[in-house]
Amino acid sequence: MPQKVRIALDAMGGDIGASVVIPGAAISLNRHPDTEFLLYGNSALIEAQLAAHPAMKAVSRVIHTDVAVSMDDKPSQALRRGRKTSSMWLAIDAVKKGEADVAVSAGNTGALMAMARFNLRTLPGIDRPAIAAVWPTLRGDSVVLDLGATIGGDAHHLAALAIMGSAMARVLFDLERPTVGLLNIGVEEVKGGEEIREAAELLRSLNLPQLDFIGFVEGDGIGRGAADVIVTEGFSGNIALKAAEGTARQIAEYLRSAMSRTLLSRIGYLFARGAFNALRGKMDPRKSNGGVFLGLNGIVVKSHGGTDAEGFAYAVDVGYDMVRYDLLTKINQTLNRHGHTLAPASAVQEALS
Amino acid sequence: MPQKVRIALDAMGGDIGASVVIPGAAISLNRHPDTEFLLYGNSALIEAQLAAHPAMKAVSRVIHTDVAVSMDDKPSQALRRGRKTSSMWLAIDAVKKGEADVAVSAGNTGALMAMARFNLRTLPGIDRPAIAAVWPTLRGDSVVLDLGATIGGDAHHLAALAIMGSAMARVLFDLERPTVGLLNIGVEEVKGGEEIREAAELLRSLNLPQLDFIGFVEGDGIGRGAADVIVTEGFSGNIALKAAEGTARQIAEYLRSAMSRTLLSRIGYLFARGAFNALRGKMDPRKSNGGVFLGLNGIVVKSHGGTDAEGFAYAVDVGYDMVRYDLLTKINQTLNRHGHTLAPASAVQEALS
Repeated sequence: MPQKVRIALDAMGGDIGASVVIPGAAISLNRHPDTEFLLYGNSALIEAQLAAHPAMKAVSRVIHTDVAVSMDDKPSQALRRGRKTSSMWLAIDAVKKGEADVAVSAGNTGALMAMARFNLRTLPGIDRPAIAAVWPTLRGDSVVLDLGATIGGDAHHLAALAIMGSAMARVLFDLERPTVGLLNIGVEEVKGGEEIREAAELLRSLNLPQLDFIGFVEGDGIGRGAADVIVTEGFSGNIALKAAEGTARQIAEYLRSAMSRTLLSRIGYLFARGAFNALRGKMDPRKSNGGVFLGLNGIVVKSHGGTDAEGFAYAVDVGYDMVRYDLLTKINQTLNRHGHTLAPASAVQEALS
Repeated sequence: MPQKVRIALDAMGGDIGASVVIPGAAISLNRHPDTEFLLYGNSALIEAQLAAHPAMKAVSRVIHTDVAVSMDDKPSQALRRGRKTSSMWLAIDAVKKGEADVAVSAGNTGALMAMARFNLRTLPGIDRPAIAAVWPTLRGDSVVLDLGATIGGDAHHLAALAIMGSAMARVLFDLERPTVGLLNIGVEEVKGGEEIREAAELLRSLNLPQLDFIGFVEGDGIGRGAADVIVTEGFSGNIALKAAEGTARQIAEYLRSAMSRTLLSRIGYLFARGAFNALRGKMDPRKSNGGVFLGLNGIVVKSHGGTDAEGFAYAVDVGYDMVRYDLLTKINQTLNRHGHTLAPASAVQEALS
């Protein structure tokens, strides 16, 4: 095994902060003992948590700061007040300086993206960043992106998302050539906006060895596992994710109320408790916690702000996997080879004029 | 009670055709005896079905045609081959000629929309049509639109959707002033594309007596019932709908497999069968069958192509309600009063230049 995976944690991020972040990281450490941590935040709060997690304490270095980005700071506010000083900024900065391999924060998404973008900058050939996450499907897991970092985008942006998402799928699912589908409102070639049809043509003509483009996928194809990677711009990606989450909560609510309705159903529930626990495990949103910021010179993982230690541990796991299996190298290799075809149309037009 | 509701049916539409359409209409007739039908299609097939449904036969007139639009005809093909002759066209034409109050078809969506738009034309003040449907939520039902008729659209288009959707909610849910939310990727004012923020401003400044604009709603707000009417352009609306349907199917599959896993869970299932039946009823996609085409000089209802008679009956019910409670009048009243503020930006620019 090569050197350890070094993870920078924003210990103040999220609705709770250190008392979720440290115990969560400790759970992940238990699964991946070859991890080291840099912990940014209020040292008194952090040390109090570390006292209860000696294994974690043994592999952690604490860097104190009084400044924390709040959950409702606007991105501009966060940058103004927390640049160079906040626990969030410092965790990202550790990645920039090469002191850490990945930063993980449960802090607010807008602020985290703004700081990550400002400090790490986008990769050569990439115009705008994306957020990707793992979506549980009937056929296993898929990577879905962009979940809301960038609204809109042309064919080149969508093709770049396909390349980055497939690199993530190769890392996470150990696939040679993941299948990639473009989210659309029909599978026929004439459907969708121009940029989507152009992106399909571009991906077909590139015929990349790193991914297998299978064409358009409709919204219900995501949960069916129609492709290993589902690509869409950030607005519709976010709407799809939230609509699916809303439906899952809605059905869980229906199920709960149905099962407690009569004496017979309550008895049935007792008999089938094992089955319901298995179902709950399948639907556990904590297991798909961890949005990966793609397209930057460094890896940043966003955990849900409201998650518990178990959920935060999954986000740390995602960060670990991205580093251990060389996400950035895989993305860069493809971009270096094909980046010129992905240059945004505006740049091409500039070059031509 | 005033005169009867006259419904024109495309008896050849859908994966099955007459043997779903006629029995389905018969179920709806049973719920609304003040209905009459015009049945367009192959008269031999239709009469064979009517023989088994005498009450339906008594209130129906059959108009024979050999031409039927197929489920995979492209809209342009359907218009070329089926204009003025197909069962789909004739049903729509009956609405145009005032012989029917509403047309219902389970035929292919693209063809139906193309024919409806071509023949009925859009309402004054409306640029492009929309598809609206009823979405079951934790708080009751909501109207969601546009589900895929029109990709994109400016603030005026979104405001027109709000007006048409709220008219439909007033008709269906018997509300004085339905709440209306704009689908967005965050509830803060700065979120989303420019057209969405402009639409919010426009709806706030119009302050219409017919609807209560509550601001932005995220994807998970739909299932929570955050508003009586959820407005979005057709691409994201279709993605939201399909993502939710996909998730519902996925969870149903998990549940089925969990409940049949062990002897105990199978026993539990037997005890709780009533509860599961209630749940199945709650999640029955047939009950939300019936997409309403809005923005045209006439009402057309689209049924799922693959539904059964029970499902088709719900689509006929929707058509009945739209007529009985004067959907078109309600839409036109608001448009006549406020249509000038909804003139598309391009027209305004033309007027200014």
